[in-house]
This record gives sequence, C-alpha cells and structure tokens, in this order.
Amino acid sequence: MIPKPYLLFIGEAKDELAIKTAAGIYEWRPNWCKGQYVYKEAKVHLNLPSYNFTEAAEHGIKTMVIGIVNAGGVLSERWKQTIVEAIDSGLNIASGMHVRLSSIPEINKAAIKNNIDLFDLRFNDKTFPTGKGTKRSGKRLLTVGTDCSVGKKYTALAIEKAMRAEGIDAEFKATGQTGVLIAEKGIAVDAIISDFISGAVEWLTPDNKNDHWDIIEGQGSLFHPSFAGVSLGLLHGSQPDAFILCHEPTRTKMRGVETLLPSLDLCIEENIRLGRLTNPNIHCAGIALNTSVMSTDPKKLKDEISAKYNLPCVDPLKDDLAEIISTLKNIK
Amino acid sequence: MIPKPYLLFIGEAKDELAIKTAAGIYEWRPNWCKGQYVYKEAKVHLNLPSYNFTEAAEHGIKTMVIGIVNAGGVLSERWKQTIVEAIDSGLNIASGMHVRLSSIPEINKAAIKNNIDLFDLRFNDKTFPTGKGTKRSGKRLLTVGTDCSVGKKYTALAIEKAMRAEGIDAEFKATGQTGVLIAEKGIAVDAIISDFISGAVEWLTPDNKNDHWDIIEGQGSLFHPSFAGVSLGLLHGSQPDAFILCHEPTRTKMRGVETLLPSLDLCIEENIRLGRLTNPNIHCAGIALNTSVMSTDPKKLKDEISAKYNLPCVDPLKDDLAEIISTLKNIK
Repeated sequence: MIPKPYLLFIGEAKDELAIKTAAGIYEWRPNWCKGQYVYKEAKVHLNLPSYNFTEAAEHGIKTMVIGIVNAGGVLSERWKQTIVEAIDSGLNIASGMHVRLSSIPEINKAAIKNNIDLFDLRFNDKTFPTGKGTKRSGKRLLTVGTDCSVGKKYTALAIEKAMRAEGIDAEFKATGQTGVLIAEKGIAVDAIISDFISGAVEWLTPDNKNDHWDIIEGQGSLFHPSFAGVSLGLLHGSQPDAFILCHEPTRTKMRGVETLLPSLDLCIEENIRLGRLTNPNIHCAGIALNTSVMSTDPKKLKDEISAKYNLPCVDPLKDDLAEIISTLKNIK
Repeated sequence: MIPKPYLLFIGEAKDELAIKTAAGIYEWRPNWCKGQYVYKEAKVHLNLPSYNFTEAAEHGIKTMVIGIVNAGGVLSERWKQTIVEAIDSGLNIASGMHVRLSSIPEINKAAIKNNIDLFDLRFNDKTFPTGKGTKRSGKRLLTVGTDCSVGKKYTALAIEKAMRAEGIDAEFKATGQTGVLIAEKGIAVDAIISDFISGAVEWLTPDNKNDHWDIIEGQGSLFHPSFAGVSLGLLHGSQPDAFILCHEPTRTKMRGVETLLPSLDLCIEENIRLGRLTNPNIHCAGIALNTSVMSTDPKKLKDEISAKYNLPCVDPLKDDLAEIISTLKNIK
C-alpha cells in the first residue's frame, strides 16, 4: 500500500488527457488527494490546492504521485530534478510510467539517501502463463472503446459502484496504471511482455462464484493502430459475457494518430466477432457515452444511439445505470 | 555476431515442434551447425553428430545455441547445470528464451569466470515508439497462420530466397527468436512490451524503395487465444501489401490449447478485415501448406485449395514459388 495522502504531480500539463492519471485518482479517491504540484506554464489544473514540497510536508502529504503522461516515455531533466527535490523533502514517489523510477540513478540515489519508497505501478515482476482460452466460472464484463481515453476505466468503476449498491458481488479489475493506482491492485497490461497479455488477464480474473462479476477495465481499441494488439489480448483473456462500448462523440481521429474513429456498429460487431473465440456468448450490454466535452445537450444523441442499437446508452458519470445493471442481471 | 560454428542444444526433445529453433537454424544455416547436444531420453534428433563438450571443443565449436523450447518459460536445474558445464568447457551460449541467461546467477558467474559471451537474442534493449499506422513506401509481405508453428518463418525465408533468385530486392525480416538467430538481426516481437508491438514492427520495416520487398515473418494466429494480440499488432505494424496464409493440414487443435483450428476462409477474411486498418490494399497472395507430416500425397489437397480460393497453394519447401512471385510482382 502506498502511504497517503498524495500530492499529484501534473507538471506542465497541456490538456485534460495528459493528466488523466491525476484526474482519475482525484475523481475516484478524492480523500487520498490533498494537493497538486504544477509548473507555471501548465494549461490545466485539478481543483486542488497547489503546494510546493515544504507546504506538502506541512499538510502531512506522504507521497507524490506522477499524474501526467510522459510523452514518448522519456523522462525530462526537469521532471527528474522535481522528483529528486520531492524525495529530498521526504516524499515517497509513485509512478505508472514505462520507465522504472529506480532505474534512474539520481532518483534511486536520492531515495536511498532519504530512506523513502519508490512505487513503480506499471511493473509487475510476476511471471504469467500464456493464455489458455478455457472457459472459467463466474461472470465478466469488459469495457471496450472506439479509441483510447474515452472513458473505459470510469465506466468500469461506475458499473462496479452501481452493482455493489444493488448488492451484487462485483469487483473492478484494473488493467492500466491509473486503474492500478485507484484499486491498489491489478496489472498494467500494456507493460506486460506481449506473449503473456491474455494469460495475465486470465490470471487477473480467475474462476469465481457463478454470480460474481469481474468488471474489467479495457484498454485501447481494436481499431487503434498503436494498441489494437493489447485490446485483442485483453478481449481474449477477459472472455467477457458482456461488454460496454465506450465512446467520446466529439472525437474524429484516434488519439495520437491520423486514423479515423470507427463507427459504433463496426466496433460492436468486431468485438463480438473476435470475442467469440473465448466466449461464444459474448454480447454488447450497452453504450457508455463520455459527454464531458460535448457543447450541446447530449440527450438527443443518447436517445438516437439507444434507439438505433436497441441498447441502453448513458453517460455513466451522470446518468442512472439501472438499465445496464438490469441487462447484466439477466445474463445466465 | 555470434561466434560459429554451433553446437545445438536439444536436451530432452519430446517432439519436432519442441526443437523448432534448432531445426530452423540447421535447415537455413547448415554450415553454421557442427553438432548437437542431446539427453539420453530425447525422442527426436537432428541429422548431426552428437557431441559432449570435450568433443565439441575438439571440433572447433565456439557456441552452444539453446535450440529447444523451455516449457512454461522455466529453466530446469538440469539445463542450468548443462549450460554451466558448456561454459566451463569454453563455449559461448546463445539463447532465445524468455529468461535472460545473465539473470541466472550460476550461469552469469561461470560466464565471467571463463570469459565467454552470453547472447540473449530475445531481448532488445532498444526503446520503440508506439505504432502510427501511417503508410510507408516500399512493399511488404507478411506470412500469417491458422496456428502457431505452421511454417510462417520457413515460408518467409523460402519467398526471400525465390525472390532474390529472380533479382528482386527482398529481405527477410525476423520477428521471432529462431528467425533472429537465422538472420542475425530482427526483433523477437513476442518479447516486446505489448504497448510497442506495432511500433517495433514499423521500426523493423521502415520506408524503402518502391520495388523493395520486406518479407516479414509472422507470429501466432489471429485465432490463437494465447497469442492473437501479438499477431494483430504484427499485422497492423507490417501494413502488408500481401500476405501468405500458412497452414498445417493435419492439425486439428491449436498448439497448446483446446481451441479448434479456424477454416482457411475465415483466416483469410479476418486478416484482410483487420489488416485494412493500416493498408486498405492488403490481399492474400497465396496459401503455404506445410505438408511435412501428411501421410497422403498432398497434391490433391493443394489442387482443391487452389481451386477453391483461386490462389496459388504450395508447400514452399518443396514446390516452385513462381506463381506466388509472379502474383507479388504484379502488386503496384
């Protein structure tokens, strides 16, 4: 367990998507977050006080969490200096970056000198077997997407919350760095050696009671040229009974590339077609619309989508999830 | 470059598939291979003299290559002892295993003591960017499969050879441990962190002259529940103009799992459907039948398949590849 409370490092934050780790932790675990650490030129902030390291210590903060994406996986000199400064002020560091904190000599040296802990959430030293594709007991829901960063994690967390409120035995299964920081367990599958993606997810969501639901956080999109392999391994390893398709309706191109977004139809069909390999009964249980950046009233769009696909279409952070939960309850 | 010639370690070899690394190196680089090291209970052998380490040294052998799959990724005590013994006899060691030779204290210690080299072909300390999916110049062929271990590497190597014989500028691009051992370059993509599969393949097969062909070794199968994610990342990263579907007709279940083999139709369709994301002009240029274990004359089957799909169907190790090469030449 990572010592709490947290100072969320968002550095030079350029846009909301860049700080989705910080925003995710703050949204789902607000009590863990006491402040943010921001560079002057940042374009976005969290609704938290900005502290320097002395102030953070005065407020009892124990750990600085890297809450911003490091573009291209490179850790800048500036970040390195900031992290070392935080360590010298007595803070532990938690990170979900692709680079291991302890592999950076300056950071490792400072950590040893100050006797603080470095938490590298993306790394998992466990060895996994390769996937088997054999049917497991218990029920599984996977959130899939038309793109990266469209609300798969939030949807899974919202469904877990709503199911638990109805007394259903449901558990969020984190598959990404932010999810792992929120759940304090799980696997960042995008950091797994590619031969073991589906095997790792099989391990994460093992046999369970018949009425237990694993609510698995999806990653990427089957249509994203950078990450579709991860999405497919996750789909096969999850062998979901049901999936929710997550979509951000103002997006035209996929995150970070020039590829256009697939249609909802195509996305539903492809997840069913490919998902059948490990669960012939897979089906789509609803559409989760991330309406946070829509400038118009989302009601009309939700109604249209719902009518077109004959499926519930909701914003899981704003709307009632009763219809989706009731669909899931009927899955035998 | 790994010092040659080689002693191929095949240990307790249970079947032909278990020693496909050794057999592949011996098939394609026979001049590099001078002997094999075999345990008494082995069920299969290569057509090479069996040497102990003293004999290997007497025959001028410089390196022992691990030519057998270590089941479940675990290195047995017995193998460990054998490898240390080989090192103590002055041999370098080359391995494509998922475990790094130098991470095993006994092996590392022996290597330092004897001043020999450890070659871990599966590991690549390079960092890759994520895939972009942008169209690159030059032409690419990918070998895909109905299953693992059906002849994708041999098909790619045979096509490279046949194209070069016709004066075409073609280069085999290795994506697995055996391929890397044969080509002495390439990337074992199954050992890449899953976020970077397609990016690594984009790096491996960059922009090139319009009439240059990269002949890319495929991995796994889109229908294999353990490895489909790797296959999809490879398909997207390769953005192939053409693919050859490789198939072993006596296989009923997929390697290592209970999943049935997909039909050729389904496999062709799925590779086209998914491959279109990064190359809308992808098409199937032929079917490569691995007839090595067929007990009947394969001619009838090849003719049937060829007629059914209106595509060349050949065993690339036995038959003429002219029809396939001519199809490829016509690709603009």
